[in-house]
Order: sequence, then structure tokens, then C-alpha cells
Amino acid sequence: MSFESPPIPDLDSAAIAGARERQDRLTKPAGSLGRLEEMSIALAGMTGRLDPSLAHRVVFTLAADHGVALEGVSAYPREVTAQMVLNFLHGGAAINVLARLFNARVVVADLGVDADLSAHPQLHQLKVRRGTSSITRGPAMSEEEAMLAIEHGRRLVADEAGRGLDVVLTGDMGIGNTTASAALICALIDIEPREVVGRGTGVDDEGLERKRAAVRQALEVNRAAAGAGPLETLAALGGFEIAGLAGVIIEAAARRRPVLIDGFISGAAALVASRLAPGTTRFMIASHRSQELGHVAVLRHLGLRPLLDLDLRLGEGTGAVLALPILDAAAAILNQMATFDSAGVAERSIAEKDTPVT
Amino acid sequence: MSFESPPIPDLDSAAIAGARERQDRLTKPAGSLGRLEEMSIALAGMTGRLDPSLAHRVVFTLAADHGVALEGVSAYPREVTAQMVLNFLHGGAAINVLARLFNARVVVADLGVDADLSAHPQLHQLKVRRGTSSITRGPAMSEEEAMLAIEHGRRLVADEAGRGLDVVLTGDMGIGNTTASAALICALIDIEPREVVGRGTGVDDEGLERKRAAVRQALEVNRAAAGAGPLETLAALGGFEIAGLAGVIIEAAARRRPVLIDGFISGAAALVASRLAPGTTRFMIASHRSQELGHVAVLRHLGLRPLLDLDLRLGEGTGAVLALPILDAAAAILNQMATFDSAGVAERSIAEKDTPVT
Repeated sequence: MSFESPPIPDLDSAAIAGARERQDRLTKPAGSLGRLEEMSIALAGMTGRLDPSLAHRVVFTLAADHGVALEGVSAYPREVTAQMVLNFLHGGAAINVLARLFNARVVVADLGVDADLSAHPQLHQLKVRRGTSSITRGPAMSEEEAMLAIEHGRRLVADEAGRGLDVVLTGDMGIGNTTASAALICALIDIEPREVVGRGTGVDDEGLERKRAAVRQALEVNRAAAGAGPLETLAALGGFEIAGLAGVIIEAAARRRPVLIDGFISGAAALVASRLAPGTTRFMIASHRSQELGHVAVLRHLGLRPLLDLDLRLGEGTGAVLALPILDAAAAILNQMATFDSAGVAERSIAEKDTPVT
Repeated sequence: MSFESPPIPDLDSAAIAGARERQDRLTKPAGSLGRLEEMSIALAGMTGRLDPSLAHRVVFTLAADHGVALEGVSAYPREVTAQMVLNFLHGGAAINVLARLFNARVVVADLGVDADLSAHPQLHQLKVRRGTSSITRGPAMSEEEAMLAIEHGRRLVADEAGRGLDVVLTGDMGIGNTTASAALICALIDIEPREVVGRGTGVDDEGLERKRAAVRQALEVNRAAAGAGPLETLAALGGFEIAGLAGVIIEAAARRRPVLIDGFISGAAALVASRLAPGTTRFMIASHRSQELGHVAVLRHLGLRPLLDLDLRLGEGTGAVLALPILDAAAAILNQMATFDSAGVAERSIAEKDTPVT
């Protein structure tokens, strides 16, 4: 089985050149706004516009359970996944608070929670199955299931595009998903579990050892699939929400939407997306550097430099939402600042005039 | 002559304890929101409230000229200081754009610009003198002038408090002021010019060498004053806007207002404030890590860890304003999230229950 990617567009080089040129005419020393300038140029390249709208920003918070969670790899019981989905729907979770603050919509989807969740107008019921199988004993899911989860993610983005969608943000919920993500990352970038497996929601030393052992065992048990193509690897070691997020990222990139990648779980999904559809990395923005061990390796591998470093390790999309003001600032600087000409500010430097007064 | 500091209050330990306790009941793993949690606790300590208002936020962008700017230490001609003040008043500068975006007021004050600026409703005319004397030949200003500039800064804060003032942000404009700041920092924390003198607005290699030489000469010429008390050091090596900003910080701290310190120049002012009134550091928040060489040493010395690292080196208060959304997020998390109890989310970890399922 193989995944057929939609075409991923190139960046718009004319828009990039236009944004660069405009940055250099603004009333500030060239380069003095650092990453804001970079981001304004990147946004122009992604969207094809110097003044992209960033008004419609949607966090896709996808939830699912993990078979491996029953093996003592998390500090929280498995029921918390469903409980947190309800918390999202009631607006009481961190992602809700931050999304309200920074004007983002939260799309909550059940890709595979191990509970019968009641219908709710804000809940997308896209359950592939009630939790994956444990990756320590075999593949997490079938390739068909992986494909279905990816398609669900893509469909969510397509639907939101009909409501207005300028920036896509990724988010996750799933007790046990740092374990699955760590296994996936180890398989995809050929790195050792001890460099990737972290404390997740906060396991103690014994829990961490169980988690490392689970990842080692998962890689051993799924060796054949993990060494095959990205879809096989995803099916062997992933999670339904991770597969769904890969779909979200792929569809967003296909539609030229900038994608703010959240933390460790979203990083694993981004890695999967980059293998299934390599051009997607052009549309990725790393929102933050997570506290979770191994996230740095993922970002390095994707060639992404995070915007924020706030010791976050929550997920849900919280880090992605926190980076929105930086995107807003980047776009505003490019479009609202005065130029040297319009403001009557001297542009030439002493060095250029070659007349130091000393 | 000596500066008489107003009393600087202690942090509110009851509010700190209350904020800590509340953080641990919110529906997230303890500590998983990292620096947002820290900031919510810090804001509680400073303001004495778990739900501080952050609505009235004011950037104090103080401008002045520097005698040393005539010695080829900047990439821009000295006239740019006055031109940029006009740009601030017309709303076209980076600080205006960012302040509009993040709902901050900009207070522009002329502490010593070398130009006759016309009256403008948004301009505070507090000129001490038309630019400092060159620090390479003697003291920048008299101690009386330093004291006057400090008082001007304090008065600006007191006046804004009458209009509503919840968060104070520092900003600066002054061609040549990275040179003065570097000299001040060298004298105050006993560090070598080569570790502090950077490219400012972007001098070339020769300019950088001139700048290093100017700082070395300034330290030599002003050796006696630089080794005396903080007021003497400020007068010998500082600038009118730097002295004014020290006053802004001192008055803000005296009034229990959190102060977002901008970059390198503001860092020098914060260092001065910390010597004139040591308790002020309790109310300082480092907004960002500047690209300017030597800023890290200042932050380390003040015991501050910056919130952002975006390769900024513009000043004006731009970095401080960019950190406002993080403060907003910190306060919102503490006050708007559901608790484990209220949301019906399982709080106890597997480790605490001591019943791993494996």
C-alpha cells in the first residue's frame, strides 16, 4: 500500500523577493528585527502575498488512545484522554484559554479515543478504533487504518477551509503518545531510544525505564515494518492522532497554508508528513522547542528552528498558539511600518558615506 | 551627591503561594506550561494579585543624543535620533506597529535630543541638554544632570499611573547609545570591552574597532568616577535616556508594577537601577535576549532569564512589547483554566497510586 500525496506547491519566489526588498526599506537597521523579518519573508513565500491574512487560525487538536499506555509508560491513567476531550469541549483546558486569548478556533476530533464520547456540536467523531494495539507486541494499526486517519486529518482541513482558514496549527491529546512518538522518531531518523524517550507528562525514574524498554521492544517487534516506507512505519509505531495530524499538515501544505507545528507529538507527525510528502516542510513553522527529550533532534532533522523556548511540554497545540503573536507581529511589521523615504529618515550609513567624523 | 531611592516593596509571598497552589490544581501535568507558570507566579508576587490587570501597558521610549556618536561609532548619522522621534510621533516606527498590535501605549520623551523638536501632543519635552558630552573626553554629564534625567523618568511613570498603568515597558532611541551602554556595563560589572562592545545598528569591522577604542578610552578617562558610586558612574558614562530609563524602572518597582526590560540599552539602564535601588530587580522581567554582544552578561548579572530569543537588536522597546502576549497568556492560564476537580479529570498519577498496570 502506498500513500498518494497531493501536489505540494513551491514557495512563491517573487513574493519572497518582494518581502525582502520591502524589509530593507523600512525605518530600522537592516536585519535588526531578526526572526520577525525572516518570518515575514517566509509567510510571503508560503502564501504568495506580502500582506497575508492571518485572521482565520485553526488549531486541530486530535485525540486518540494508545495500547502501550496500559504498560505503565505514563504518569496518568488512560481515562484522562477522554476526560481531557470533554475538558476541550467545555472550554476549560489550556488550549481553550490560549486559543481564546489569541483568536484561534479549536477543532477537536476523536481519531481513536477508548471511550464512547457523546455527540457534541464541537466534536468531530472520526474514531478509527478505540485505541491502537500495543506497539510492544505488534503493529499499532493496519496500513488501511493509518491511511484512514490521514484522510480524516486532510478532510478536517478541507472542511475548515470552507469556513476561512489562514493558518493551521497542530495539537494532540493521547495518554501514551510520547511513547508512540518516540518509537516513530527512532525508526524514522535512526536515533537511539535513550536520546528520544523523555518523561512525557512526568513519569518517575521507574516509569522512564519502562518507557525506554517499551520503545526498544516496539522497535524490535516491528523491525520489518519500521524499516519499510513511511506509511508502514506510521502504521507499526504511530497513533491515530499522529496519523491524523500528518494528514492535517499535508492538506495544509497542499493549500499553501502556513502550519505552526506544536511540540513533540506534532513533531513526530511532521516527520511522518515530511516522508509521505516531502514538500510539506516548506510550509512548516516550528512554534517552540519542547522540554521533551528528543524534540530537538526532530527539529534539527526537519531543518526547523523553533520560535519559542518556554519549557513547555503540554501539547494540545498550546505551543503553536503561543507563537501566533509572533506571526502577527511579523506580518504587521512588513505592512505597517514607514519606509526611510516616507518618514524622512537618513538611510545611508556613515560607513557607506565613507566620511567618519573623527 | 547621592540618589535617595523610594522604598521598593517586597514581593507578596502570600500571592506567590496562592498562585503556586492554584497552578497545581489546573488540568495539566504540574509544570507542563513551564515559563508560563513561572510568569503567572512572578506576576502574582509583584502585583499582590492572582488575577492582575494587564490592560494598561505603557512603553516608555526615551530618546537622547550622545557626544560619542560624532566619533564614528555608529552606522547611522546622529540626525537619525531626531528623525526617529518624529517617526515615533507619526506612528510609523516598529515600536508603534507592535504597540498597536499588542494594545500598548507609547510614551515618547525627549531627554536630550540634539535638535529643536516642535511641540507635539505626544511628545514629552524633558530635554536635559542637547546630547551628552563625549565620554572619550570626560564625563557624559554632571551628577545633577543625571539626577534630573532620573527624576524625569520617575515623573513620566507617576503621570501615566494617573491614566492607568499595569505593566511598564522600557524603550530607547539614541544614535551612539550602544557605545555608552557598553561603557556603563563594563564599569558596573567589571567586564572587558571586547566582551561587551557589539555592532549596534550595524557598524562594519572598522567601526567596531573605533567603538571598542572609544569604550576603552572612556573607561580610562573616567576611571575615578566609574569606580565610585552608581550615580557617578552613570553621569560619567551614561546617556540622558539611559538615566531616564533607570528612573522609569525605579518608579515602576516602587509602585509594584512589573517592568518588561527591552534589550541592550534597557539592560544597561536596569543595571543602573539595580545599583541605585537594589530591590528593583524583583520587578524586572527580561523580555528578550538581544543579538547585541554583551547583553547576555547583563542578564546573567541581574539574574534574569529572557522570555524570547528572536535575534532582535532594534531597541525602541520592540522586544519588550513582543513579550506582552506571554504575560497575557500566563495570567489567562492561571485564571481561566479548569481545575482537576471542576473538570472531572483524574489527577492522581500512576506513580502516586503505585499501581502500574504492567
